[in-house]
Amino acid sequence: MRRVDEVKKPITNGVAVWIVIPLVLALWLPASAQTVPLLSWNDGPARKAIIEFVQVTTDKASPKFVPPEARIATFDNDGTLWAEQPMYFQLLFALDRVKALAPQHPEWKDKEPFASLLKGDVQGALAGGERAMLEIGMATHAGMTTEEFEKIVKDWIATAKHPKTGRPYNEMIYQPMVELLRYLRANGFKTYIVSGGGVEFMRAWVEKAYGIPPEQVIGSTIKTKFELRDGKPVIMRLAELDFIDDKEGKPVAINKFIGRRPVLACGNSDGDQQMLEYTQAGPGARLMMLVHHDDAVREFAYGAASKIGTFSDALMAEAKKDGWTVISMKNDWKRIFAWEQ
Amino acid sequence: MRRVDEVKKPITNGVAVWIVIPLVLALWLPASAQTVPLLSWNDGPARKAIIEFVQVTTDKASPKFVPPEARIATFDNDGTLWAEQPMYFQLLFALDRVKALAPQHPEWKDKEPFASLLKGDVQGALAGGERAMLEIGMATHAGMTTEEFEKIVKDWIATAKHPKTGRPYNEMIYQPMVELLRYLRANGFKTYIVSGGGVEFMRAWVEKAYGIPPEQVIGSTIKTKFELRDGKPVIMRLAELDFIDDKEGKPVAINKFIGRRPVLACGNSDGDQQMLEYTQAGPGARLMMLVHHDDAVREFAYGAASKIGTFSDALMAEAKKDGWTVISMKNDWKRIFAWEQ
Repeated sequence: MRRVDEVKKPITNGVAVWIVIPLVLALWLPASAQTVPLLSWNDGPARKAIIEFVQVTTDKASPKFVPPEARIATFDNDGTLWAEQPMYFQLLFALDRVKALAPQHPEWKDKEPFASLLKGDVQGALAGGERAMLEIGMATHAGMTTEEFEKIVKDWIATAKHPKTGRPYNEMIYQPMVELLRYLRANGFKTYIVSGGGVEFMRAWVEKAYGIPPEQVIGSTIKTKFELRDGKPVIMRLAELDFIDDKEGKPVAINKFIGRRPVLACGNSDGDQQMLEYTQAGPGARLMMLVHHDDAVREFAYGAASKIGTFSDALMAEAKKDGWTVISMKNDWKRIFAWEQ
Repeated sequence: MRRVDEVKKPITNGVAVWIVIPLVLALWLPASAQTVPLLSWNDGPARKAIIEFVQVTTDKASPKFVPPEARIATFDNDGTLWAEQPMYFQLLFALDRVKALAPQHPEWKDKEPFASLLKGDVQGALAGGERAMLEIGMATHAGMTTEEFEKIVKDWIATAKHPKTGRPYNEMIYQPMVELLRYLRANGFKTYIVSGGGVEFMRAWVEKAYGIPPEQVIGSTIKTKFELRDGKPVIMRLAELDFIDDKEGKPVAINKFIGRRPVLACGNSDGDQQMLEYTQAGPGARLMMLVHHDDAVREFAYGAASKIGTFSDALMAEAKKDGWTVISMKNDWKRIFAWEQ
């Protein structure tokens, strides 16, 4: 029989104890206590509002405590987590795809909106309005399996460059928001994207960029169909719109996909108004935020007059009236992109 | 200055170490190592297949290792996690609702399928086929907010009783499957419901019954609409079908809601065929299972000839050919319901 002393000896020495105790402490302390959060945020009203919200909702002694399973935080993507100028990046992806696919479509030479696009006249192509956008979308986003589409998007993200900064698009993400997502998750929040962008376009790269897994990405969808191709089950992408995840569509999609009302929602445009209203209407502590693009030097300055990411005066008035936090990119963010000096 | 010795003393004694070491071990050991899994399963081929699958997919040294984020397991509900005889429980809910709502609908006295239902003639009412079912469904599932509907379902689950056993419907869940869900989660799997049942009908009670949160419940849906009611944002349930989550619909919904192919799928009827095929078609280790209702004494015995939960001969042949695990309720399960002696 082995003697107890033999077992105890190598463990009771001081070194082992000094390894074990901090380890236990590290495992027990909430992750939030281990890091200084939101390093890229100035110590202004937005950062204060976030930290105060997280503190009261995660403190069991607080009357505003929110149990972990109800800590749902929803974020718009375009203009909220990554940039959206000079136009939505998914539209730039579609334009690149038109060029890549043109050799297989000789008929596009004489067919709008493709003809204008192939001549480099983007404004002319988009003059056809929603119908033109839809045609470009379907020609570039449908007719392949979901797995083929994922590969196309991944290849594009790995190679395409933003026209102003020359950076890959997945470097056009806002560092303060990446830190905010991380901070929320470290405090037990489940972070979701709820975007007007295509869900399968986003899922191809957002996990790496934001730490948000595919099942927490909600977006616009086209119809799909299960079929056997060479005896192998695949999901085919069809050239038919299924759902536009914008404006009134956002709370509808949140209810359908998550089945819980968020306690925190963040957007940047009129398309996010209803998501924030829906979030605010629940009981208990709530945090509604809007990113305001007011930094022409480090990013872009636009708002009420912009067709992309419209932030109307009415939305600003509602934000003020209802106590929503407006994040000034100029004043609240120390830096915008991770690669800034 | 405090001396180091003072700090060390109370910690280096034997007692503290013997508390700390097991604590560290307990925190580091996987949950699976702490409990004997699947107690209500006989030690037969189904239990063996499950345990072997979990072992090879969670062992980092195994060539079949699956990283935690890809451990997606999808389960049908009716006939897989809870019973579905003498008819789908959601249909029994709808019939109860017709009776409860009848005083507000005097016109139902002369209108099928309601007239037959109110006379107690369920077969007569359902003789109208899908159209009759749809009318009953819409009359009882639409026209209220999502929150009102949730309360109606919760009240029903708390009071209604199964016609054969006299038990509340949420006690008609299969104990071996509850243990399987728990065992999978303890091993890092994310458990989902993918059912033909209504998603909001299920979300009202499945979290408590199975430990599956609302955001991991996928089902059939009706259309909904965001609107302001007395100035308060609500989601209204509309009398219009949105999506039937059955057969080809299941892989389509899995792709749309989860965005990853499951590595484990379990169903019990022809409605689950495509979900299992889709699961199997991915690379690496896969486990496809079908619950077979072959126990007339403890539950119900039905299969190819049943209209509810049809398990056709073709499905059984496919299961055999493709190596899917057929769970015999009679032989593989020690007990079926938690309340059995």
